[in-house]
Formats: sequence, C-alpha cells, structure tokens
Amino acid sequence: MKYWNKTLKSMDEYIPGEQPADLDEYIKLNTNENPFPPFESVLKALAQNLNGSLKRYPDSKAIKVREIFAEQNGLKPENVFAGNGSDEIFTLIFRGFIEKNGIAAFPYPSYSLYDTLAQSNGIKFEKINLGADLNLDLDKFLVKGYDMVIIANPNNPTGTFTEKNKIKEFIKKYKGLLVVDEAYIDFYGGSSIDLVKEFDNVIVTRSFSKSYSLAGLRVGLAIADEEIIKGLFKLKDSYNVDALALAGASAALLDTKSFNYNIGMLRSNKEYLEERLSGLGFEIVPSKANFIFTRHPKITPGDLYEKLKKQKILVRYFRGPIQSDYVRISIGTMMEIKKTCTVIETILGEV
Amino acid sequence: MKYWNKTLKSMDEYIPGEQPADLDEYIKLNTNENPFPPFESVLKALAQNLNGSLKRYPDSKAIKVREIFAEQNGLKPENVFAGNGSDEIFTLIFRGFIEKNGIAAFPYPSYSLYDTLAQSNGIKFEKINLGADLNLDLDKFLVKGYDMVIIANPNNPTGTFTEKNKIKEFIKKYKGLLVVDEAYIDFYGGSSIDLVKEFDNVIVTRSFSKSYSLAGLRVGLAIADEEIIKGLFKLKDSYNVDALALAGASAALLDTKSFNYNIGMLRSNKEYLEERLSGLGFEIVPSKANFIFTRHPKITPGDLYEKLKKQKILVRYFRGPIQSDYVRISIGTMMEIKKTCTVIETILGEV
Repeated sequence: MKYWNKTLKSMDEYIPGEQPADLDEYIKLNTNENPFPPFESVLKALAQNLNGSLKRYPDSKAIKVREIFAEQNGLKPENVFAGNGSDEIFTLIFRGFIEKNGIAAFPYPSYSLYDTLAQSNGIKFEKINLGADLNLDLDKFLVKGYDMVIIANPNNPTGTFTEKNKIKEFIKKYKGLLVVDEAYIDFYGGSSIDLVKEFDNVIVTRSFSKSYSLAGLRVGLAIADEEIIKGLFKLKDSYNVDALALAGASAALLDTKSFNYNIGMLRSNKEYLEERLSGLGFEIVPSKANFIFTRHPKITPGDLYEKLKKQKILVRYFRGPIQSDYVRISIGTMMEIKKTCTVIETILGEV
Repeated sequence: MKYWNKTLKSMDEYIPGEQPADLDEYIKLNTNENPFPPFESVLKALAQNLNGSLKRYPDSKAIKVREIFAEQNGLKPENVFAGNGSDEIFTLIFRGFIEKNGIAAFPYPSYSLYDTLAQSNGIKFEKINLGADLNLDLDKFLVKGYDMVIIANPNNPTGTFTEKNKIKEFIKKYKGLLVVDEAYIDFYGGSSIDLVKEFDNVIVTRSFSKSYSLAGLRVGLAIADEEIIKGLFKLKDSYNVDALALAGASAALLDTKSFNYNIGMLRSNKEYLEERLSGLGFEIVPSKANFIFTRHPKITPGDLYEKLKKQKILVRYFRGPIQSDYVRISIGTMMEIKKTCTVIETILGEV
C-alpha cells in the first residue's frame, strides 16, 4: 500500500451482494435486481444501435434521455443529469457539493455505499438511527447543522417510506443539501421530484437498475436545480454513460406500457410473498420497494441466510446493529418466490 | 453556484471535441476515433448478450476481460483493472494515489483532461514543456520531487513517442508514481507494459476507444503492480463497467486478426495523408498515433480549422501556446482522407 494515499488507506471497502460463479444455479434474491427481463422494446432499441456508430464517442450531454425524462416529469432537460448508474452520481455529489471539512449525515441502517463514498472522498459523516419501527425521523437531522443529508426513499434495506410532505417540511427548515435516493420509488410511487421545482437544495436520484430491469447497463439520473446539474456536468468524465446504455434508457422511459405491466406483476408477487411468509410467522417491515425486510422468532437471520444458501437461494444478510436482526429478500418471479417459500417452510419445520 | 464546493468552483471545465447535431453530414477527424466500425466478432458478441441477463448487475470484478488481457501480455489478472474508459481510471488515480498536498506534473502540450482531473480532485500540478521538436525530455521531471507524473505515449495532441528504454531509465531514478497513458500505443507498438513487472510505481493505461473502435462503449484498462490494482478496486464504484462493454471488450481482445487488419489499414491511410499533405507544403510532426499534428506556412491553424469546418470537415484546433501553432487531424477512411486533402488543396489555392 506504499502508493495509497491516506484517504484510500483509511476507507472501508464496499462489499456488493455476492455473485457466485455458478450464479445460474441460484435463485438470486439478494441484490434487488428486477426478476423480469428488460422490455422487448429496450432490447430492440439496443439491437438497432449495434452498428458502426459504436466507433464514435457517446453523446456527452445525454440529451435524448434527459429530454424524455424532463418532458415526462414537467421539468427542463437542464434539471436532469445522466450518470454511470446512480452510484456515479453519489460519487460526484461528494466530490463537488461538500467542503472537505463538511459533515454529511445518513440514516442507519441505509445504503452503506454512502459511507464508503464519503470515506473515499475524505468527507466525515454521522449516522442517525431509524426509529424503533424502522421509520425515518427527519427532525433528528436538524439538530446539528449537517452540510449534506442523504436519505434513500424507500429506504434500503428496510423498504420503509417517507411521505413527500414530511420531506417538504424538512427541506423548509434545512439549509444544507438534501439528496433523496429514489432507486426504489417506481414500485409504489410517491416521488419527491416536484420539490426540485421549489427548492434549490434538493437532488433526487433515480436508477434504471431496478424498475427498468437494466442493472447490467448502468444508468442513473439526478434531478435538481440547474446550478447543481451544471456542477455535475463540470465534474463528470466527458463520456460517462455509454452509447448503448443511453439508447436503452431512452427506450425504457418511452415504454410506459411494459413498465406498468412489470410493476403490476412485481407488486402482486410481493403480496404473495408477504402473505405466505406472514402465514409462516414472519414479521415483515412494511415495504414500498421490490424487497422485504423480515425476521422470524424461531430462527436467527444468519442461520436462515445460511440454510437458504445451501438450498441455492441467495437472500441478503447484513452485519451490524439493527440490520442483522433481519434478512432482506428481493421480490423474484412467482416461480422463484414459491420455491423460496417452500424451502423456508421446510427449514422452519427443522428448527 | 451556492452549493458548489471550492474545488468545483475553481476548476476549469474539460471541453471535449465538438460533436455537431448534424454530425452525419461531417467528415469527423477531430476526436481520434477509429474510422472503421467495431469488429464483426464484437458486434456478434454484443448481440449475444442482448437478453434477459441485462437485468443482472455486471461482473463487478470484470474477470473475463482481465484474464484475457493478462494471458495475452504475460501478466496476472491481479495486475489488470477495468474502468469506464481510461478517463475513469485517471480520476481514480487522482483520488487514491496522491495526497491532497502532493504535486503532479504533466508534459505540455498533452491531454488536457489530466489538468481538469487534477483540479477536480484538488491536486496541484505543474506542466513542463515538450522540447522544440515536441519530444519529451523526462529528465526535466526529475528536477523537483513530483509525487506523480502522467505522460501520454504516444503523446496527444503531438503524436510524438518516447522509447521504452528512456522510460525505464527515468523510472529507475524516479520515486513517485508514473502513469503512462497508452491510449494510442496499439497503432505502432512499443508499449511500456513490461515495466509493470519490474517496478511497483508504474501504471500503464489502455483504451478500447481508439484501436478497437469502441469509443461508444467506454472501456479502459489499468496495468500495474497488484497493490495499485487493489487500491483501484477499493475506490471504484461497484459496477463501474457495464455488461455489454465488458462483453465487447473481451471479444475485441480475442479477435487479433481483425485488430491487425484494421491497424494495417489505418497505417496505410496515415501514410497516404502524410504524403499528400507533405506534397502540399505541410510540416508534419512525426506521429506514432492515429492522428497527425501539422501546420502550413501559408495559413494559420485557426483559419484552416474554420475553412475546413465550413466544408463540413472537422479537425481539432487547440488554443494555448505551442499547440495553437498546429491542427490535429485524425486518420479517417481513405475516402474521408482523399476528400479532406482535396478540400485543403482548394483552401490553400485561395489564400
């Protein structure tokens, strides 16, 4: 580590959900990917872009996808930015919108990448526990004058949701920069995007990895005041989103029919899973995302995770206070969910 | 700019080569893209990956492309890292391998993105002029104890090349971190990759945008000592290169036949361009890249650029000392080059 700087030496590594080499043999319910394939219209758009034009650099301004999203959401393209997944957008936010001596704050438990990115950019942060019901109490973020607050809404890994009016009450009182990570918002709605029209200190982020089944392509959006978007453009690499990802994201936004159909299926699969697991005695945290956070009085979450993995079913088990009391299960296809429920039933019968 | 931090406020924006909206009407010789389409084998591999698997996150370790490159170059996969274009790799290098009070150094003129990235990460840097013949004198980088030196080899925009043994002599004496940007090395060979096997303070970067005609897909590689590669992995976003880009890059590396064929065509187009322009009285800097840096006693470079643009031919004209004495012309297809030469001939006849 002779050439590592202090920041790199001191940061913790972010560990993404496991992807075993023999992945295809698993039911994979551990990284909140969408169980349905990308829309036919998206695959078609991608196929149409598989040609000589790939020799050219992609559109560094991502104009098409920004125009479509802006049009659909009553915004200007100047309010929209495209990143190499929302992960890149968070990195840019830490690099450009908080001073090195600033302090950020995130709820706990939440998406642990925020911690990693803050560390990797030498930014101090504090974490504020969710309430006993795993809901977010935004007032707690007003006590100290944090320079930046990032919340995931719905929150990951809990699935809990904060109403827009509560976020609006908060932003009226909060003078720093608020980032609302809406990676999971599409499944049940309730976006805070409109707040961008009223407040210049809100950044909403979106992802194509979940509701659009495009985790493989890496596209995320940031929606914010023009000045923030200009800053993101200044900071980003010239060609941060590739040509196929841009084409796929544009096509995905336009296919509202497939979108609605997939969201509908996902919701009904979630209801089925919740019902069966409730019937088996699981406590399920109310979720507005494509996953549930759940626990059972008869088996520890670590045990359940291990036993499911032995049966080639991957769910997510996080270490650390509060979150280690639960497992997180992504919503799969009906076949995957039924199989999972049956395996869980057997496991419970044996403990 | 209320929410911009000091770094963002003070940095200059990197301006990539222009991409006019009516691009297809232009002969585009301004951003060093490859004039030939991606290999058939690459388009086929991409088509094979247009399926449901795009709903999954890509391989965060980029194992396949790293294994192939390592195997082809007598390295271990642990010496190879894949980034979202080599641009991302430079960003990560600035973030992880130089302290905030360190000083970097680059030749001038060279790839101006180094300046932008240093600024955007709050790193001070100095620039050391190339010699009168536009060649690099590495000894000048030994006078001060720079923490990091980045050179492009061949250099951009000059096309000038530094022999590996000169770089080796330098690295024997230099104690900081040396980054050798080999985005253009494939066209004439002479890589410094082998130095990675001997020295733990060399990072060589590669791009798929030029020699592999994949600028649209965004893949770059870093080759370095294992400890450096580990640091890059720790710092990068989990899924920094998308699934199609990974598939395309792997297929590109394996198709050495198409690679050699395209390189051969490009070289002979370059010879043709050099011969015709020499015949017209142009002074051409000896180039080992897929572009030439050239000037003519009868017309200023700014004038030539403007007049070519009016004829729908884009070449690159840089402002700033030394480099504003020349235009940079990327090597196009034979048809593009012939047309360009004819237009230049007419322009020269009119001045």
